[in-house]
Amino acid sequence: MSLHTKILLEEHDIPTHWYNIVADMTTPPAPPLGPNGQPVPPEALGAIFPGAILEQEMSGERWIEIPEEVREAYRIWRPSPLYRAHRLERMLGTPAKIYYKNEAVSPAGSHKPNTAVPQAFYNKQAGITRLSTETGAGQWGSSLAFAGQMFGIAVRVYMVKISYQQKPSRRSMMQTWGAEVFASPSDLTKAGRDALAADPNNMGSLGLAISEAVEEAAGRADTNYSLGSVLNHVLLHQTVIGLEAKKQLAKVGDYPDMIFAPCGGGSNFGGIAFPFLADKAAGDAKAKNLRLVAVEPTSCPTLTQGVYAYDYGDASGYTPIMKMYTLGHDFMPPGIHAGGLRYHGDSPLVSQLYHEKLIEAVAVPQLATFEAGVMFARAEGVIPAPESCHGIRACIDEALRCKQSGEPKTLLFNLSGHGHFDMAAYDRYFSGGLEDFAYPKEAVTASLEHLPKVG
Amino acid sequence: MSLHTKILLEEHDIPTHWYNIVADMTTPPAPPLGPNGQPVPPEALGAIFPGAILEQEMSGERWIEIPEEVREAYRIWRPSPLYRAHRLERMLGTPAKIYYKNEAVSPAGSHKPNTAVPQAFYNKQAGITRLSTETGAGQWGSSLAFAGQMFGIAVRVYMVKISYQQKPSRRSMMQTWGAEVFASPSDLTKAGRDALAADPNNMGSLGLAISEAVEEAAGRADTNYSLGSVLNHVLLHQTVIGLEAKKQLAKVGDYPDMIFAPCGGGSNFGGIAFPFLADKAAGDAKAKNLRLVAVEPTSCPTLTQGVYAYDYGDASGYTPIMKMYTLGHDFMPPGIHAGGLRYHGDSPLVSQLYHEKLIEAVAVPQLATFEAGVMFARAEGVIPAPESCHGIRACIDEALRCKQSGEPKTLLFNLSGHGHFDMAAYDRYFSGGLEDFAYPKEAVTASLEHLPKVG
Repeated sequence: MSLHTKILLEEHDIPTHWYNIVADMTTPPAPPLGPNGQPVPPEALGAIFPGAILEQEMSGERWIEIPEEVREAYRIWRPSPLYRAHRLERMLGTPAKIYYKNEAVSPAGSHKPNTAVPQAFYNKQAGITRLSTETGAGQWGSSLAFAGQMFGIAVRVYMVKISYQQKPSRRSMMQTWGAEVFASPSDLTKAGRDALAADPNNMGSLGLAISEAVEEAAGRADTNYSLGSVLNHVLLHQTVIGLEAKKQLAKVGDYPDMIFAPCGGGSNFGGIAFPFLADKAAGDAKAKNLRLVAVEPTSCPTLTQGVYAYDYGDASGYTPIMKMYTLGHDFMPPGIHAGGLRYHGDSPLVSQLYHEKLIEAVAVPQLATFEAGVMFARAEGVIPAPESCHGIRACIDEALRCKQSGEPKTLLFNLSGHGHFDMAAYDRYFSGGLEDFAYPKEAVTASLEHLPKVG
Repeated sequence: MSLHTKILLEEHDIPTHWYNIVADMTTPPAPPLGPNGQPVPPEALGAIFPGAILEQEMSGERWIEIPEEVREAYRIWRPSPLYRAHRLERMLGTPAKIYYKNEAVSPAGSHKPNTAVPQAFYNKQAGITRLSTETGAGQWGSSLAFAGQMFGIAVRVYMVKISYQQKPSRRSMMQTWGAEVFASPSDLTKAGRDALAADPNNMGSLGLAISEAVEEAAGRADTNYSLGSVLNHVLLHQTVIGLEAKKQLAKVGDYPDMIFAPCGGGSNFGGIAFPFLADKAAGDAKAKNLRLVAVEPTSCPTLTQGVYAYDYGDASGYTPIMKMYTLGHDFMPPGIHAGGLRYHGDSPLVSQLYHEKLIEAVAVPQLATFEAGVMFARAEGVIPAPESCHGIRACIDEALRCKQSGEPKTLLFNLSGHGHFDMAAYDRYFSGGLEDFAYPKEAVTASLEHLPKVG
C-alpha cells in the first residue's frame, strides 16, 4: 500500500489525446435544433466558432489528438496532482479510501483552463485575433484571459455588473493577464444599450452577458466567441482530468468504487467521469460496479428534479435548443454562493447519460456543502471553491456510510477549484449569514411552461 | 538539454535535515543581548518558546533532523516544483536560463508554512496547547493557523486593525483553519487596552500586535509565541527551499550563476540562498562564482542603506537587541504594498553574511516591481505576491543585461507567494494609483539616533 499523499505524474504523462464519449454512447446524441426546428448545420455557427472546434463538437471519433502547443501550455500546471486524503479519512474515522484530483493548481485556480487553452489555440490557428466571452463570478473569464495571453490573442470579457462591482479581485486578475473587462450591460453592444435604455440601473445577468459577447463575435470577422461549459467540445477538453486520474490510481494499484463531482454545466463532472465510463463501455471488469455521481445544489437541481427536454442554453432564447435536463430557461436559481452551479440546464452529454441511467445524481443543500468544505480545509489544507464543496459533501456522506457499514470503498472526487476569491462566502457561513434554499418547485413549474415547442 | 517546464521531485525527496548555515560561518553569530547588556540565556526565552526551538536558535550543528511528523505535513505541498521559465525567457529575448522555485503552491500561498509547521509541531510536543502570534497583511497568520490545525493546536492571531478591516479574506482564511483572529489593538491584553485608552481609534501596528501576542504567551503556561521570520530557527526551517532547488537543478544538470530573492525579515532569501552558500563554504568548484542577491524595496532599504548595529527587533523595544542591519527600530517605512518587506531590520544571519560580503543586496522601486510582476504573470501564468515581484524584478534586470552582453547565465529566483489576496494592489497599479517612494533619508537619519547603546 502506498503511503503517498500526492501521486504525481511527469510532463510526458500529460495525455496525448482527449477522450470523446460520443464514440461509446449506444444512442447518438440528439442534435441541437435551430429556429426552424431542424438540426443546426456546423456552418451556421462558423461566425462565432473556428472549424476545429465545430468539428470536435460534432465528432464521433473516440480519441482526438491534443495539439503539441496545447500540451506545452498544459505543462504550466499539468499533470495536476492526485491526492490521497489520509487526514480527511482519519478525521472521519472511515475505512474508505478517499482520493481527490486537485484542479485548483492551475493559474486561474480551477479546471476551466483545460478548455480555455485549446479554445484560444484553435482560434489563434484560425486567424482569429480576439475572443469575446461572458463571466459571472469570474472563474471562466479569468481562465480565458490567461489562455488568450498564452497564445497572444486579445480577450474581451463581459462581466455581470453585480459581480464586476462585488468581485474586483477577479476583475484585476483578468486585467493582469491582459484582458479587457466590461461591466455588463455595457454600451458596447445593442443588447447592452437596449437593456440600459430599459433600466439604467440594470445589474446584469449571465444571459445578458452571453448576448453581448455573442453579438460582438457575430458582428466582427476578427472575433470569435468562447464558452466555458455545457458544449461537447468543452467536456471533451476536460477529459484530461479523468485520463490523468486513471493513470495516477493505476500507479498505486487502485481503482474507484465511486466518483463524485459538482455538476452545473457539466464540464467538471464530465471531465473526471467520462474516462472512467469508457472502462465500463469497454466491459472492463474492474469498472463493473463503478458508480458516478453528479452533485448539484438542492436549490438548482437540474438532473434530480428537471425534465429531459429540448430547451434554450441561455436565458434569453438566443441559442439553438438542446436536448437536456432543464428547469426551464427562464428559471432564476436562488442566490447560492456556488455561482458555477446556478444554471438552469446541463450538458446534453451528461443529460443523456443520466437519462440512460449510466450515471447518478444527488442534490445537497448549501449549508452542508460549506460544512464539508471547512472539514476538508482543516484536514487537507486547501480551501475549496463553493462549487467544489458540493462534490466533497457527497463524498464525505458516502465515507460516513462506509463507517457505518464497515465497507472499505475507494472514493474519488474532483477538487475543481480553490476558494481564494470566495472567502466572503465562508465569512458569511461562519457568521451565520448563509441560508439553505428549498427546492423552488413553484418557480420551476412556472418556468417549465415556457419550454420551446419541438416538432 | 531538458525541455521540462516543471522539475518535480517525489515525496521521498523532501529533505530529511535542515541546513544550519551557522556551522559554516567563519565568525560565530553575535549573540542577542538583554536589557543588562549581557547575552540572553536560552532559559530567559523559555516562557514563550519551546526547548526544541530554542536549541535550534542557538545551534551550531550543520544538519538538524526534520521530524517525521513535519515531513508528513510538508507532503501536502512539498517538494514544491522548480520551474524553467521558458516563456519569460522568450518574452525577454534573453540568452539567460531562468528558473524559479514555486513556493506559492502551499495551502496558505507562500513559503511561510515551511516554518509554521515545525513551530506548531515542536510546541505541541512540548505540551503547549495554544499559540499566539501577530500578523500584518495576513500571510504569516494564515500559515500558523493552517499549521496549528495540522497538529491540533489552537492559534490566536492579533491582526493589525487596519489590515483586519481591509483584508477580510485573509481573516476568513485563518478562521476557516480554526484560528481566532482579533483586531489589534484589542481589549484582551494590557498593551492593547493601554493603546486604546490613549487613542480609541488606534488602527494598530505590527509592533503593537507583537506586544499583544508576546504578552499573552508570557502570561499563560499553556500558550507560546511564534514568529514568522528574522530568527535563526525560522531561516533554518526555510532551507528546505534551497535544498530541494539544488536537487531539482542537479536533475537537469544545471547550477545557478545568480540567485535572487526578496528580503524583508530574511527567511525567504535565507531559505533559498543558504544551501547554495554551503557549496561555496565547502569549496565546491561549481559555486565559485555564484552570486546571491537579496532584493529589498527602495523605500525600506535595510541592507543597502542601513547600519550594522545592535537594535531592537520590534518597534516598541520589548525584544532583546540583535546585531543586524537596521534603519532604526522606530523607522516607519512608507506604505508600499509589499507588507512583508516593510521591516526596519533584517535577520542577524543574513546581516552578518552581507557584512562579510558573502552575499549582495539591491534595492528596487515599487512601480518597477509591479511591472515585473505583470510581465511574469503574462509569461508564466502565476500572479506573484508584491514581495515576490521584488525578486522577479532583479532577475529580469539581470536577464536583460545578459541580452546586452550575450551571456547565457543561469538565473534562479524564489517565487515566495501568489498574489491572490493582493489583487487590489495590482488594481491600483493598473489605474495609476501606485507611486514610488524615494529612499526616506531624513526619517532614517532621525530613527538611527535612537539606536540602543551597547557596552
